[in-house]
Amino acid sequence: MNALYNLALCPTSCSHSTPKHNTKWKTEVNGTATVALEGKALSRASSVTGKQRRIVSAASVTELTRVSETKGRQNIPTEKQLVDPFRQGIITEGGVRYRQTVVIRSYEVGADKTATLESILNLLQETALNHVWVSGLLGDGFGATHGMVRNNLIWVVTRMQVQVDEYPIWGEVMEVDTWVGASGKNGMRRDWLIRSDVTGEVLVRATSTWVMMNQQTRRLSKMPEVVRAEISPWFIENKAFEEEIPEKIYKLDTNAKFTNSNLKPKRSDLDMNHHVNNVKYVNWMLETIPHKFLENYQLTRMTLEYRRECSSSDVVESLCKPEEERFEERHQDRNVDNGDSLASALFQDGNHSKSFKAYTHLLQITGDKESEEIVRGRTIWRRKL
Amino acid sequence: MNALYNLALCPTSCSHSTPKHNTKWKTEVNGTATVALEGKALSRASSVTGKQRRIVSAASVTELTRVSETKGRQNIPTEKQLVDPFRQGIITEGGVRYRQTVVIRSYEVGADKTATLESILNLLQETALNHVWVSGLLGDGFGATHGMVRNNLIWVVTRMQVQVDEYPIWGEVMEVDTWVGASGKNGMRRDWLIRSDVTGEVLVRATSTWVMMNQQTRRLSKMPEVVRAEISPWFIENKAFEEEIPEKIYKLDTNAKFTNSNLKPKRSDLDMNHHVNNVKYVNWMLETIPHKFLENYQLTRMTLEYRRECSSSDVVESLCKPEEERFEERHQDRNVDNGDSLASALFQDGNHSKSFKAYTHLLQITGDKESEEIVRGRTIWRRKL
Repeated sequence: MNALYNLALCPTSCSHSTPKHNTKWKTEVNGTATVALEGKALSRASSVTGKQRRIVSAASVTELTRVSETKGRQNIPTEKQLVDPFRQGIITEGGVRYRQTVVIRSYEVGADKTATLESILNLLQETALNHVWVSGLLGDGFGATHGMVRNNLIWVVTRMQVQVDEYPIWGEVMEVDTWVGASGKNGMRRDWLIRSDVTGEVLVRATSTWVMMNQQTRRLSKMPEVVRAEISPWFIENKAFEEEIPEKIYKLDTNAKFTNSNLKPKRSDLDMNHHVNNVKYVNWMLETIPHKFLENYQLTRMTLEYRRECSSSDVVESLCKPEEERFEERHQDRNVDNGDSLASALFQDGNHSKSFKAYTHLLQITGDKESEEIVRGRTIWRRKL
Repeated sequence: MNALYNLALCPTSCSHSTPKHNTKWKTEVNGTATVALEGKALSRASSVTGKQRRIVSAASVTELTRVSETKGRQNIPTEKQLVDPFRQGIITEGGVRYRQTVVIRSYEVGADKTATLESILNLLQETALNHVWVSGLLGDGFGATHGMVRNNLIWVVTRMQVQVDEYPIWGEVMEVDTWVGASGKNGMRRDWLIRSDVTGEVLVRATSTWVMMNQQTRRLSKMPEVVRAEISPWFIENKAFEEEIPEKIYKLDTNAKFTNSNLKPKRSDLDMNHHVNNVKYVNWMLETIPHKFLENYQLTRMTLEYRRECSSSDVVESLCKPEEERFEERHQDRNVDNGDSLASALFQDGNHSKSFKAYTHLLQITGDKESEEIVRGRTIWRRKL
């Protein structure tokens, strides 16, 4: 399986590199530099003993001071926190589920004053990372636990599904819940529920599945026992929504109706992992849909199947195709009881063919050799009122 | 003066239009719909009396219900709030200065784990709007007061300056202070200070000047007495930093060294005002600077002079030119005592010509007729450590 990589929750090159935040650092050589060091940096510092310790160069102490100052400013907890007043987060439900209060900000909404899908995806990433943050398990990376860092492992997402029942609006206060569960023997599932604080209604549901990959070999890995011991106490079985028979997304061929070619990542599209952020993928996918369609329909569900990562030097092509016939056939023929909840709802909507539309998507890397798939996607759209 | 328009704080088309958030609305026709209405919507509702009231169509009640539900979910205060627990904001210093606790989120940082300039600008916009939000003055628009809405006025920014002493890092807790003051007879100044909560150090300072524009005629307006009465009690004279002799930014000609042409706004670049967001301008400006330079230098100060707005159908050109000679001449010749604080610091830095670089920028709309300036900019960059 060459399912690979997403940037939402997995560290790559950053997890072992010194944070470079390019600021003026004080050159303190008084020993305080190492006191606050944790994890890898500390063990590296501790391995210097006796005479060696005395000849640590001023330069390396400066380096350690930088790491220390960064850590001090970040203040990543080393033990489980039940409350994080700054992130407005609490641990609920048996001490394992995370809930964060979030207000939709002015720059997170589009022209219609509702949150953009990009903002929603960003909030999913943010609350997932904050869950790991308050757990005390966060290693020196982008969501990886201490045990993962020691084993040189990173998280890679293989599948993600987001369902937007109603778009949050500017200034709306929301509660975002997120939690994790087992997914097969070596995987992890992460779910989210976003509720309006005022109405109590669920606005957004999302689910995702994750596996581990060795950062050097780029091969998928079994979950080491040390990692299982860290994360399995956090597993609960609730699901944000049912996806009883996960639909396989068929691969679009190059005859796709709409194509955006020659897409090149910009500096600002790269995240902490120095790779193109997941949210950029979704933007590329959706920008390929005709403008006229986007004026009349809003996305209500999106399913993504990740295949491989994309780096800053790749040139990407975004393909999409409306699914009109396929969509109606599939949903009219299927046994509703076996379908997922949205499919059932669509089917029960007598006028669904006008109310809902579907698109199939493909992002691929183009080049001299054969194109390589980055992500397959399927989106379902509801006619705007 | 054809200084025009920015989208950070000013409402245009949205301020009188019904929020379209394209969701399923309950069609309640029980009269509760109008109860929570405020301002214009309420006065419109009140003008319908007696028989007329009884024949209000179900459709218009539905419309009012939508407005009401949106307002209920937004919950914009109609009176001054000293504390906003959701936004983590408080009113300080004589009851007029706003302070908000903010944590730098995972998606607000770049590959180096420090906040992007885009994120910083977004936070300035957000805290400014939240200041108006808690003041109880926010009308049905994007930062406009009730008196402004009644007079059909919007805010337009004419000048903005941001100085980044140190970039916030992922997970850093910050306190953002913002306040307003008088600027001439008809203008308003808004300043910001961003401090690290852990170190107490100032990371970012910013200042801006604003005037009012009639939304229909697009002409600048004097500040009406009703608006002066609303906002002048909030004025304080503190300044985030001194800009004793505001530097005029010279206009680049088309021989500028670096050019990005044919820039077209995307759907996602439009904000609540259906215009290209200010932050997009800055991205266009900075993306024109050579990649190699951006690898070695980080922005430490940016000055923007706004000339006119940009809409979704405009095609934009971004020009920039390094200022090497001009920069050194200017700063070596000037009397330090009259210079601004950064210029003084640069001058006192014996090696400034290597440590700092400057660029002049121009964004303009291209077309059949003569190009029209959107914004002139000047940026100062510090060599990364």
